[in-house]
Amino acid sequence: MISDTDLESAVLAHQTDDHRIDAAHDLGHLRRVWANCRRIALDEPGADLEVLRVAAFLHDLVNLPKDAPNRAEASRLSAEAAVIWLRQAGFPEAKLPAVAHAIAAHSFSAAIPPETLEARILQDADRLEALGAIGLARLFVVAGQIGTALFDDHDPMALHRPLDDRRFALDHLEVKLFPVAQAMQTHAGRQMAEERAEWMGSFRSRLLREIG
Amino acid sequence: MISDTDLESAVLAHQTDDHRIDAAHDLGHLRRVWANCRRIALDEPGADLEVLRVAAFLHDLVNLPKDAPNRAEASRLSAEAAVIWLRQAGFPEAKLPAVAHAIAAHSFSAAIPPETLEARILQDADRLEALGAIGLARLFVVAGQIGTALFDDHDPMALHRPLDDRRFALDHLEVKLFPVAQAMQTHAGRQMAEERAEWMGSFRSRLLREIG
Repeated sequence: MISDTDLESAVLAHQTDDHRIDAAHDLGHLRRVWANCRRIALDEPGADLEVLRVAAFLHDLVNLPKDAPNRAEASRLSAEAAVIWLRQAGFPEAKLPAVAHAIAAHSFSAAIPPETLEARILQDADRLEALGAIGLARLFVVAGQIGTALFDDHDPMALHRPLDDRRFALDHLEVKLFPVAQAMQTHAGRQMAEERAEWMGSFRSRLLREIG
Repeated sequence: MISDTDLESAVLAHQTDDHRIDAAHDLGHLRRVWANCRRIALDEPGADLEVLRVAAFLHDLVNLPKDAPNRAEASRLSAEAAVIWLRQAGFPEAKLPAVAHAIAAHSFSAAIPPETLEARILQDADRLEALGAIGLARLFVVAGQIGTALFDDHDPMALHRPLDDRRFALDHLEVKLFPVAQAMQTHAGRQMAEERAEWMGSFRSRLLREIG
Protein backbone atom coordinates (compact mmCIF):
# COMPACT_ATOMS: atom_id res chain seq x y z
CA MET A 1 0.00 0.00 0.00
CA ILE A 2 1.45 3.36 -1.07
CA SER A 3 0.85 5.97 1.64
CA ASP A 4 0.22 9.70 1.20
CA THR A 5 3.67 10.29 2.69
CA ASP A 6 5.25 7.99 0.06
CA LEU A 7 3.53 10.02 -2.65
CA GLU A 8 4.69 13.33 -1.17
CA SER A 9 8.25 12.01 -0.96
CA ALA A 10 8.06 11.05 -4.63
CA VAL A 11 6.97 14.61 -5.48
CA LEU A 12 9.80 16.17 -3.46
CA ALA A 13 12.32 13.77 -5.04
CA HIS A 14 11.23 14.94 -8.50
CA GLN A 15 12.19 18.56 -7.80
CA THR A 16 15.04 19.94 -9.83
CA ASP A 17 16.42 23.44 -10.24
CA ASP A 18 14.27 23.93 -13.33
CA HIS A 19 11.21 22.48 -11.73
CA ARG A 20 10.78 23.47 -8.12
CA ILE A 21 7.76 23.40 -5.89
CA ASP A 22 6.45 26.95 -5.40
CA ALA A 23 3.86 28.47 -3.09
CA ALA A 24 1.07 27.83 -5.60
CA HIS A 25 2.10 24.21 -6.27
CA ASP A 26 3.31 22.96 -2.89
CA LEU A 27 2.32 19.83 -1.01
CA GLY A 28 -0.64 21.73 0.43
CA HIS A 29 -2.01 22.13 -3.10
CA LEU A 30 -1.73 18.36 -3.67
CA ARG A 31 -3.46 17.58 -0.37
CA ARG A 32 -6.27 20.02 -1.15
CA VAL A 33 -6.76 18.58 -4.63
CA TRP A 34 -7.06 15.14 -3.04
CA ALA A 35 -9.54 16.53 -0.48
CA ASN A 36 -11.56 18.09 -3.34
CA CYS A 37 -11.52 14.72 -5.14
CA ARG A 38 -12.99 13.02 -2.07
CA ARG A 39 -15.71 15.66 -1.70
CA ILE A 40 -16.70 15.35 -5.36
CA ALA A 41 -16.49 11.53 -5.31
CA LEU A 42 -19.11 11.40 -2.52
CA ASP A 43 -21.53 12.52 -5.18
CA GLU A 44 -20.17 10.26 -7.96
CA PRO A 45 -20.77 6.58 -7.23
CA GLY A 46 -18.22 4.22 -8.74
CA ALA A 47 -15.15 6.46 -8.65
CA ASP A 48 -11.96 4.49 -7.97
CA LEU A 49 -10.52 6.30 -4.95
CA GLU A 50 -7.16 4.54 -5.17
CA VAL A 51 -6.67 5.78 -8.75
CA LEU A 52 -7.84 9.25 -7.69
CA ARG A 53 -5.53 9.43 -4.69
CA VAL A 54 -2.30 8.65 -6.53
CA ALA A 55 -3.36 10.78 -9.51
CA ALA A 56 -4.12 13.72 -7.20
CA PHE A 57 -0.74 13.57 -5.47
CA LEU A 58 1.24 13.03 -8.69
CA HIS A 59 -0.70 15.27 -11.11
CA ASP A 60 1.93 18.07 -11.03
CA LEU A 61 4.97 15.78 -10.89
CA VAL A 62 6.43 17.69 -13.84
CA ASN A 63 5.37 21.29 -13.15
CA LEU A 64 6.72 23.58 -15.86
CA PRO A 65 6.70 27.38 -15.41
CA LYS A 66 3.63 29.24 -16.77
CA ASP A 67 5.79 30.73 -19.52
CA ALA A 68 7.70 27.56 -20.54
CA PRO A 69 7.38 26.82 -24.28
CA ASN A 70 6.48 23.16 -23.58
CA ARG A 71 4.01 24.03 -20.82
CA ALA A 72 1.17 22.20 -22.64
CA GLU A 73 3.24 19.00 -22.38
CA ALA A 74 3.57 19.15 -18.59
CA SER A 75 0.58 16.96 -17.75
CA ARG A 76 1.62 14.28 -20.28
CA LEU A 77 5.16 14.32 -18.86
CA SER A 78 3.70 14.10 -15.34
CA ALA A 79 1.61 11.07 -16.38
CA GLU A 80 4.69 9.31 -17.78
CA ALA A 81 6.80 10.08 -14.70
CA ALA A 82 3.96 8.95 -12.41
CA VAL A 83 3.60 5.61 -14.21
CA ILE A 84 7.35 4.94 -13.90
CA TRP A 85 7.33 5.75 -10.21
CA LEU A 86 4.09 3.85 -9.42
CA ARG A 87 5.28 0.75 -11.29
CA GLN A 88 8.47 0.50 -9.22
CA ALA A 89 6.43 1.21 -6.07
CA GLY A 90 4.25 -1.83 -6.80
CA PHE A 91 0.99 -0.04 -7.71
CA PRO A 92 -1.44 -2.41 -9.49
CA GLU A 93 -0.45 -2.54 -13.18
CA ALA A 94 -4.10 -2.78 -14.30
CA LYS A 95 -4.87 0.66 -12.84
CA LEU A 96 -1.92 2.49 -14.37
CA PRO A 97 -3.73 3.50 -17.60
CA ALA A 98 -6.54 5.10 -15.56
CA VAL A 99 -4.03 7.05 -13.46
CA ALA A 100 -2.08 8.14 -16.52
CA HIS A 101 -5.21 9.35 -18.34
CA ALA A 102 -6.50 11.27 -15.32
CA ILE A 103 -3.15 13.04 -14.90
CA ALA A 104 -2.67 13.77 -18.60
CA ALA A 105 -6.22 15.15 -18.98
CA HIS A 106 -6.27 17.30 -15.82
CA SER A 107 -4.55 20.28 -17.38
CA PHE A 108 -6.30 23.11 -19.16
CA SER A 109 -3.49 23.68 -21.64
CA ALA A 110 -3.15 20.00 -22.60
CA ALA A 111 -6.70 20.09 -24.06
CA ILE A 112 -7.23 16.33 -23.62
CA PRO A 113 -10.92 15.50 -23.02
CA PRO A 114 -11.38 13.53 -19.76
CA GLU A 115 -12.85 10.16 -20.73
CA THR A 116 -13.19 8.49 -17.32
CA LEU A 117 -14.99 9.40 -14.12
CA GLU A 118 -11.66 9.71 -12.30
CA ALA A 119 -10.29 12.07 -14.96
CA ARG A 120 -13.41 14.25 -14.71
CA ILE A 121 -13.18 14.37 -10.92
CA LEU A 122 -9.45 15.19 -10.88
CA GLN A 123 -9.89 17.94 -13.46
CA ASP A 124 -12.65 19.56 -11.39
CA ALA A 125 -10.72 19.10 -8.14
CA ASP A 126 -7.66 20.84 -9.57
CA ARG A 127 -9.69 23.64 -11.16
CA LEU A 128 -11.40 24.39 -7.83
CA GLU A 129 -7.94 25.36 -6.58
CA ALA A 130 -7.98 28.23 -9.09
CA LEU A 131 -11.32 29.53 -7.77
CA GLY A 132 -12.53 31.21 -4.58
CA ALA A 133 -10.31 32.62 -1.85
CA ILE A 134 -7.63 29.98 -2.40
CA GLY A 135 -7.70 30.62 -6.15
CA LEU A 136 -7.28 34.34 -5.61
CA ALA A 137 -4.36 33.89 -3.22
CA ARG A 138 -2.66 31.56 -5.71
CA LEU A 139 -3.37 33.95 -8.61
CA PHE A 140 -1.61 36.86 -6.88
CA VAL A 141 1.29 34.69 -5.65
CA VAL A 142 1.94 33.61 -9.22
CA ALA A 143 1.70 37.26 -10.32
CA GLY A 144 4.42 38.09 -7.80
CA GLN A 145 6.55 35.19 -8.99
CA ILE A 146 6.41 36.07 -12.67
CA GLY A 147 6.19 39.86 -12.29
CA THR A 148 2.66 40.51 -13.61
CA ALA A 149 0.97 43.74 -12.51
CA LEU A 150 -2.08 43.40 -10.21
CA PHE A 151 -4.39 45.20 -12.66
CA ASP A 152 -4.42 47.94 -15.24
CA ASP A 153 -4.39 51.08 -13.15
CA HIS A 154 -6.14 53.10 -15.90
CA ASP A 155 -8.68 50.49 -17.00
CA PRO A 156 -8.89 47.60 -14.48
CA MET A 157 -12.04 46.11 -16.09
CA ALA A 158 -10.55 46.24 -19.63
CA LEU A 159 -13.46 48.34 -20.92
CA HIS A 160 -11.30 50.09 -23.53
CA ARG A 161 -8.55 47.55 -24.28
CA PRO A 162 -8.24 43.81 -25.03
CA LEU A 163 -7.96 41.50 -22.00
CA ASP A 164 -4.33 40.58 -21.31
CA ASP A 165 -3.67 38.26 -18.36
CA ARG A 166 0.04 38.10 -19.14
CA ARG A 167 0.25 41.77 -18.13
CA PHE A 168 -2.56 42.07 -15.56
CA ALA A 169 -3.40 39.41 -12.96
CA LEU A 170 -6.99 40.65 -12.53
CA ASP A 171 -7.67 40.01 -16.24
CA HIS A 172 -7.16 36.29 -15.53
CA LEU A 173 -10.66 36.18 -14.02
CA GLU A 174 -12.33 36.94 -17.36
CA VAL A 175 -9.74 35.22 -19.56
CA LYS A 176 -9.66 31.91 -17.74
CA LEU A 177 -11.22 31.56 -14.30
CA PHE A 178 -14.85 32.48 -14.99
CA PRO A 179 -14.87 30.31 -18.15
CA VAL A 180 -13.31 27.41 -16.20
CA ALA A 181 -16.05 27.68 -13.58
CA GLN A 182 -18.58 27.28 -16.41
CA ALA A 183 -16.88 24.16 -17.80
CA MET A 184 -16.83 21.82 -14.84
CA GLN A 185 -17.29 18.09 -15.44
CA THR A 186 -19.18 16.91 -12.37
CA HIS A 187 -22.32 18.03 -10.54
CA ALA A 188 -20.61 18.65 -7.19
CA GLY A 189 -17.65 20.33 -8.90
CA ARG A 190 -19.98 22.65 -10.80
CA GLN A 191 -21.83 23.69 -7.64
CA MET A 192 -18.63 24.45 -5.76
CA ALA A 193 -17.14 26.28 -8.76
CA GLU A 194 -20.22 28.48 -9.20
CA GLU A 195 -20.19 29.52 -5.58
CA ARG A 196 -16.46 30.28 -5.68
CA ALA A 197 -16.68 32.19 -8.97
CA GLU A 198 -19.52 34.30 -7.57
CA TRP A 199 -17.37 35.15 -4.58
CA MET A 200 -14.49 36.11 -6.89
CA GLY A 201 -16.85 38.49 -8.66
CA SER A 202 -17.70 40.11 -5.31
CA PHE A 203 -13.98 40.37 -4.52
CA ARG A 204 -13.42 42.17 -7.80
CA SER A 205 -16.31 44.59 -7.13
CA ARG A 206 -14.87 45.35 -3.74
CA LEU A 207 -11.37 45.87 -5.12
CA LEU A 208 -12.70 48.27 -7.76
CA ARG A 209 -14.55 50.23 -5.05
CA GLU A 210 -11.42 50.46 -2.93
CA ILE A 211 -9.18 51.63 -5.76
CA GLY A 212 -11.84 54.18 -6.75
CA MET B 1 3.55 74.10 -10.24
CA ILE B 2 4.77 70.51 -10.08
CA SER B 3 2.27 68.20 -11.81
CA ASP B 4 1.40 64.60 -10.88
CA THR B 5 3.19 63.55 -14.07
CA ASP B 6 6.36 65.39 -12.98
CA LEU B 7 6.23 63.53 -9.67
CA GLU B 8 5.73 60.16 -11.37
CA SER B 9 8.67 60.88 -13.69
CA ALA B 10 10.82 61.65 -10.65
CA VAL B 11 9.84 58.28 -9.13
CA LEU B 12 10.67 56.40 -12.34
CA ALA B 13 14.00 58.25 -12.66
CA HIS B 14 14.94 57.07 -9.14
CA GLN B 15 14.69 53.40 -10.11
CA THR B 16 17.94 51.45 -10.05
CA ASP B 17 18.68 47.74 -10.35
CA ASP B 18 18.70 47.44 -6.56
CA HIS B 19 15.56 49.46 -6.14
CA ARG B 20 12.94 48.76 -8.76
CA ILE B 21 9.25 49.45 -8.79
CA ASP B 22 7.34 46.19 -8.25
CA ALA B 23 3.67 45.25 -8.54
CA ALA B 24 3.02 46.20 -4.90
CA HIS B 25 4.81 49.57 -5.16
CA ASP B 26 4.02 50.78 -8.66
CA LEU B 27 2.67 54.15 -9.80
CA GLY B 28 -0.85 52.85 -9.13
CA HIS B 29 0.05 52.48 -5.45
CA LEU B 30 1.23 56.11 -5.36
CA ARG B 31 -1.93 57.36 -7.06
CA ARG B 32 -4.13 55.37 -4.66
CA VAL B 33 -2.26 56.69 -1.63
CA TRP B 34 -2.84 60.21 -2.92
CA ALA B 35 -6.53 59.40 -3.48
CA ASN B 36 -6.74 58.03 0.08
CA CYS B 37 -5.10 61.24 1.35
CA ARG B 38 -7.77 63.33 -0.37
CA ARG B 39 -10.59 61.20 1.06
CA ILE B 40 -9.19 61.47 4.59
CA ALA B 41 -8.43 65.19 4.22
CA LEU B 42 -12.11 65.90 3.47
CA ASP B 43 -12.67 65.03 7.11
CA GLU B 44 -9.61 66.88 8.45
CA PRO B 45 -9.90 70.65 8.00
CA GLY B 46 -6.60 72.48 7.63
CA ALA B 47 -4.56 69.78 5.89
CA ASP B 48 -2.10 71.23 3.37
CA LEU B 49 -3.00 69.38 0.18
CA GLU B 50 0.10 70.53 -1.68
CA VAL B 51 2.36 69.04 1.00
CA LEU B 52 0.22 65.90 1.01
CA ARG B 53 0.29 65.50 -2.75
CA VAL B 54 4.06 65.63 -3.20
CA ALA B 55 4.60 63.52 -0.05
CA ALA B 56 2.15 60.88 -1.33
CA PHE B 57 3.87 60.57 -4.71
CA LEU B 58 7.42 60.60 -3.29
CA HIS B 59 6.91 58.57 -0.08
CA ASP B 60 8.48 55.39 -1.53
CA LEU B 61 11.19 57.16 -3.52
CA VAL B 62 13.76 54.86 -1.90
CA ASN B 63 11.92 51.54 -1.64
CA LEU B 64 14.20 48.92 -0.13
CA PRO B 65 13.29 45.20 -0.28
CA LYS B 66 11.32 43.77 2.69
CA ASP B 67 14.39 41.80 3.75
CA ALA B 68 17.02 44.55 3.31
CA PRO B 69 19.08 45.14 6.49
CA ASN B 70 18.56 48.91 6.28
CA ARG B 71 14.83 48.63 5.52
CA ALA B 72 13.94 50.80 8.54
CA GLU B 73 15.98 53.62 6.96
CA ALA B 74 14.02 53.64 3.70
CA SER B 75 11.50 56.34 4.66
CA ARG B 76 14.23 58.67 5.96
CA LEU B 77 16.22 58.12 2.76
CA SER B 78 13.05 58.78 0.73
CA ALA B 79 12.50 62.04 2.63
CA GLU B 80 16.07 63.18 1.88
CA ALA B 81 15.82 62.26 -1.79
CA ALA B 82 12.42 63.96 -2.04
CA VAL B 83 13.75 67.21 -0.55
CA ILE B 84 16.66 67.26 -3.01
CA TRP B 85 14.35 66.67 -5.96
CA LEU B 86 11.64 69.13 -4.81
CA ARG B 87 14.19 71.88 -4.15
CA GLN B 88 15.57 71.71 -7.69
CA ALA B 89 11.99 71.53 -9.03
CA GLY B 90 11.17 74.83 -7.32
CA PHE B 91 8.82 73.57 -4.60
CA PRO B 92 8.32 76.20 -1.86
CA GLU B 93 11.27 75.96 0.54
CA ALA B 94 9.06 76.74 3.56
CA LYS B 95 7.02 73.58 3.02
CA LEU B 96 9.96 71.18 2.63
CA PRO B 97 10.23 70.31 6.35
CA ALA B 98 6.53 69.32 6.42
CA VAL B 99 6.98 67.09 3.35
CA ALA B 100 10.15 65.52 4.76
CA HIS B 101 8.51 64.76 8.11
CA ALA B 102 5.40 63.25 6.51
CA ILE B 103 7.52 60.97 4.31
CA ALA B 104 9.94 59.96 7.07
CA ALA B 105 7.10 59.18 9.52
CA HIS B 106 4.87 57.24 7.10
CA SER B 107 6.66 53.94 7.52
CA PHE B 108 5.82 51.33 10.13
CA SER B 109 9.41 50.16 10.53
CA ALA B 110 10.84 53.69 10.91
CA ALA B 111 8.84 54.10 14.16
CA ILE B 112 8.79 57.92 13.92
CA PRO B 113 5.64 59.38 15.55
CA PRO B 114 3.71 61.58 13.07
CA GLU B 115 3.67 65.08 14.54
CA THR B 116 1.70 66.97 11.90
CA LEU B 117 -1.74 66.56 10.40
CA GLU B 118 -0.21 65.80 6.98
CA ALA B 119 2.03 63.10 8.47
CA ARG B 120 -0.95 61.48 10.19
CA ILE B 121 -3.00 61.54 6.99
CA LEU B 122 -0.19 60.12 4.83
CA GLN B 123 0.50 57.34 7.32
CA ASP B 124 -3.17 56.33 7.34
CA ALA B 125 -3.44 56.63 3.54
CA ASP B 126 -0.47 54.32 3.01
CA ARG B 127 -1.62 51.81 5.63
CA LEU B 128 -5.04 51.56 3.96
CA GLU B 129 -3.17 50.10 0.99
CA ALA B 130 -2.23 47.13 3.19
CA LEU B 131 -5.88 46.48 4.14
CA GLY B 132 -8.97 45.22 2.35
CA ALA B 133 -9.04 43.60 -1.07
CA ILE B 134 -6.13 45.72 -2.33
CA GLY B 135 -4.12 44.89 0.79
CA LEU B 136 -4.72 41.20 0.31
CA ALA B 137 -3.72 41.29 -3.36
CA ARG B 138 -0.52 43.17 -2.46
CA LEU B 139 0.20 40.77 0.43
CA PHE B 140 0.11 37.72 -1.84
CA VAL B 141 2.05 39.42 -4.64
CA VAL B 142 4.84 40.19 -2.18
CA ALA B 143 4.67 36.57 -0.95
CA GLY B 144 5.22 35.43 -4.53
CA GLN B 145 8.11 37.87 -4.97
CA ILE B 146 10.00 36.83 -1.86
CA GLY B 147 8.96 33.16 -1.82
CA THR B 148 6.81 33.04 1.33
CA ALA B 149 4.27 30.19 1.60
CA LEU B 150 0.57 31.17 1.49
CA PHE B 151 -0.14 29.65 4.93
CA ASP B 152 0.88 26.82 7.19
CA ASP B 153 -0.83 23.83 5.66
CA HIS B 154 -0.95 21.99 9.01
CA ASP B 155 -1.90 24.91 11.23
CA PRO B 156 -3.05 27.92 9.16
CA MET B 157 -4.37 29.84 12.22
CA ALA B 158 -1.15 29.26 14.24
CA LEU B 159 -3.05 27.62 17.08
CA HIS B 160 -0.11 25.38 18.03
CA ARG B 161 2.92 27.39 16.89
CA PRO B 162 4.23 30.97 17.12
CA LEU B 163 3.08 33.36 14.38
CA ASP B 164 5.71 33.70 11.65
CA ASP B 165 4.91 36.03 8.76
CA ARG B 166 8.35 35.53 7.22
CA ARG B 167 7.30 31.96 6.46
CA PHE B 168 3.53 32.27 6.04
CA ALA B 169 1.79 35.17 4.28
CA LEU B 170 -1.52 34.57 6.09
CA ASP B 171 0.21 35.10 9.46
CA HIS B 172 0.82 38.71 8.39
CA LEU B 173 -2.82 39.49 9.19
CA GLU B 174 -2.34 38.83 12.92
CA VAL B 175 1.29 39.98 13.09
CA LYS B 176 0.85 43.32 11.40
CA LEU B 177 -2.35 44.11 9.49
CA PHE B 178 -4.99 43.77 12.22
CA PRO B 179 -2.79 45.73 14.69
CA VAL B 180 -2.20 48.43 12.03
CA ALA B 181 -5.96 48.77 11.53
CA GLN B 182 -6.24 49.44 15.27
CA ALA B 183 -3.57 52.14 15.24
CA MET B 184 -4.86 54.60 12.68
CA GLN B 185 -4.25 58.31 13.24
CA THR B 186 -7.36 59.96 11.78
CA HIS B 187 -11.09 59.48 12.19
CA ALA B 188 -11.79 58.75 8.51
CA GLY B 189 -8.73 56.53 8.27
CA ARG B 190 -9.85 54.52 11.30
CA GLN B 191 -13.33 53.98 9.87
CA MET B 192 -12.02 52.81 6.50
CA ALA B 193 -9.39 50.60 8.18
CA GLU B 194 -11.93 48.91 10.44
CA GLU B 195 -14.20 48.10 7.54
CA ARG B 196 -11.29 46.72 5.49
CA ALA B 197 -9.89 44.69 8.39
CA GLU B 198 -13.31 43.17 9.03
CA TRP B 199 -13.49 42.13 5.39
CA MET B 200 -10.01 40.59 5.64
CA GLY B 201 -11.26 38.53 8.57
CA SER B 202 -14.15 37.28 6.45
CA PHE B 203 -11.70 36.44 3.65
CA ARG B 204 -9.64 34.40 6.09
CA SER B 205 -12.73 32.54 7.35
CA ARG B 206 -13.70 31.72 3.80
CA LEU B 207 -10.19 30.56 2.92
CA LEU B 208 -10.10 28.28 5.97
CA ARG B 209 -13.48 26.80 4.96
CA GLU B 210 -12.26 26.16 1.42
CA ILE B 211 -9.03 24.48 2.47
CA GLY B 212 -11.00 22.37 4.93
